[in-house]
Amino acid sequence: MRTIRMTVAYDGTNYVGWQIQPNGESVQSAIERAILKLTGEQISVLSAGRTDSGVHALGQVVSFRTNSPIPCNGFRKALQKFLEPDVIIRDLQNTHADFHATYSAKKKRYRYIIHNSKTHNPFLRNYVWHRHSRLDTDAMHAAAQKLIGTFDFRSFESHWPNKATSVRTVMELTVRREHYCPIFFEQPGGLCAAPSSGSVSPSQPEGDFIWIEIVADGFLYNMVRAIVGTLIHVGTGRWHAEDIRRIRDAMDRSQAGDTAPPQGLYLVEVDYGDDASDDAPLD
Amino acid sequence: MRTIRMTVAYDGTNYVGWQIQPNGESVQSAIERAILKLTGEQISVLSAGRTDSGVHALGQVVSFRTNSPIPCNGFRKALQKFLEPDVIIRDLQNTHADFHATYSAKKKRYRYIIHNSKTHNPFLRNYVWHRHSRLDTDAMHAAAQKLIGTFDFRSFESHWPNKATSVRTVMELTVRREHYCPIFFEQPGGLCAAPSSGSVSPSQPEGDFIWIEIVADGFLYNMVRAIVGTLIHVGTGRWHAEDIRRIRDAMDRSQAGDTAPPQGLYLVEVDYGDDASDDAPLD
Repeated sequence: MRTIRMTVAYDGTNYVGWQIQPNGESVQSAIERAILKLTGEQISVLSAGRTDSGVHALGQVVSFRTNSPIPCNGFRKALQKFLEPDVIIRDLQNTHADFHATYSAKKKRYRYIIHNSKTHNPFLRNYVWHRHSRLDTDAMHAAAQKLIGTFDFRSFESHWPNKATSVRTVMELTVRREHYCPIFFEQPGGLCAAPSSGSVSPSQPEGDFIWIEIVADGFLYNMVRAIVGTLIHVGTGRWHAEDIRRIRDAMDRSQAGDTAPPQGLYLVEVDYGDDASDDAPLD
Repeated sequence: MRTIRMTVAYDGTNYVGWQIQPNGESVQSAIERAILKLTGEQISVLSAGRTDSGVHALGQVVSFRTNSPIPCNGFRKALQKFLEPDVIIRDLQNTHADFHATYSAKKKRYRYIIHNSKTHNPFLRNYVWHRHSRLDTDAMHAAAQKLIGTFDFRSFESHWPNKATSVRTVMELTVRREHYCPIFFEQPGGLCAAPSSGSVSPSQPEGDFIWIEIVADGFLYNMVRAIVGTLIHVGTGRWHAEDIRRIRDAMDRSQAGDTAPPQGLYLVEVDYGDDASDDAPLD
């Protein structure tokens, strides 16, 4: 029995989300079916994050155990043949037996893209949140800094209480403008690349694409989308940085903004605090 | 009775093409249904180009006549509400009564995008032709110049003979590398923008996106896709510029390469040799 760790990118448009649901195809079921076809094994796979319907991933991490002897590169290529082209296995390697895609994660990076333009782009409808009125991204960035640190984030959690604790640590939260929608841009670091210019300061005041990047040790249900739906009101001038602090401290979901729509959200990368390839026992 | 000219961008993924077909929804039928809902009129609309299933448009031009008195800007906004977000009316204005979107066109620009990369991007599957092996775009560009001028292009026409004549004039044909897929990039000239750097010379040898731009006074059925499917063989080194001349002069479709797949193709803009807004009699 070996343990495999995969990095997967997917377009979430045609899926009901990561997790198996009765009402449609999930990314999890697509991957499990592909493994069944390749190995004959009925396996449950684990993931770093349970992305919702319509949410995308550039660097979702998936782990599972298998008795298959197929070497990693061949396994990746063969498995890909059983998947639709909207789910791409970017990497597949052996890892140590106690690796768990969900619980071993140290931090995750999500990105939210707003297309802040007077015109609609028909090609972007499933990949951004379109906002017609110009948003003040400098103000959004400044206010967002109130959410950096360790807090009870239940003001930004749907269906609370879902978890033993709503305390999470946000390490990074930036709002900046760019001239491009990053998922379609070839970057030096590949699909997963962090912002090209410094991730601390916003700037680029002319671009129509707003990138909101957030890194935390874990995320509550709909946390990124609730934060985005709240920061929007800073962008319009309704709220200011002090309101973000107030909402954070209220620990009351009704104080914050609405949940932003799913199609602008991307699970970008997951940090396990180690290089999995160091542990590869096979291949 | 007034004549309206619209510029329309659409993602062709979910349509059977521009023209009404028995086997599914066409862009034409979507627009005609929207006009029926808005005005109560059962109208046939004309277009500059009959894009195939899966082919996209950044600047398709559509014309029709209507008795509706709704001013242009209100007409555009109201009509858009009856369309899915994968069809966007970018512009709508009144024009002279003898304007005909098909026959008044003086020249059209098509763009074909190849993603020339070892990795698949799940978000691009409906928007590019993915080619794994590195293509020599300098050689493709040089060979493409053999197709500039007035020729009988039946070597690049599907189902010939379809037309009274297969003679067309190609004014521009360039092959270049870029770092981005243009439809997702905000450009100074908007969706329709011509290449940012000079359109004559290729360069940018590092980019993974190959843009093939072609301007002609008219296009035969599948002409751009047949040219792309032929130039590919120059990119791999199988054919050279002299082969392109030979294929052109053979006037035999079987001599050329296969028809490239539809999803990399975009109708970019249509030139009517005039500024339609000069003629606007209403509004």
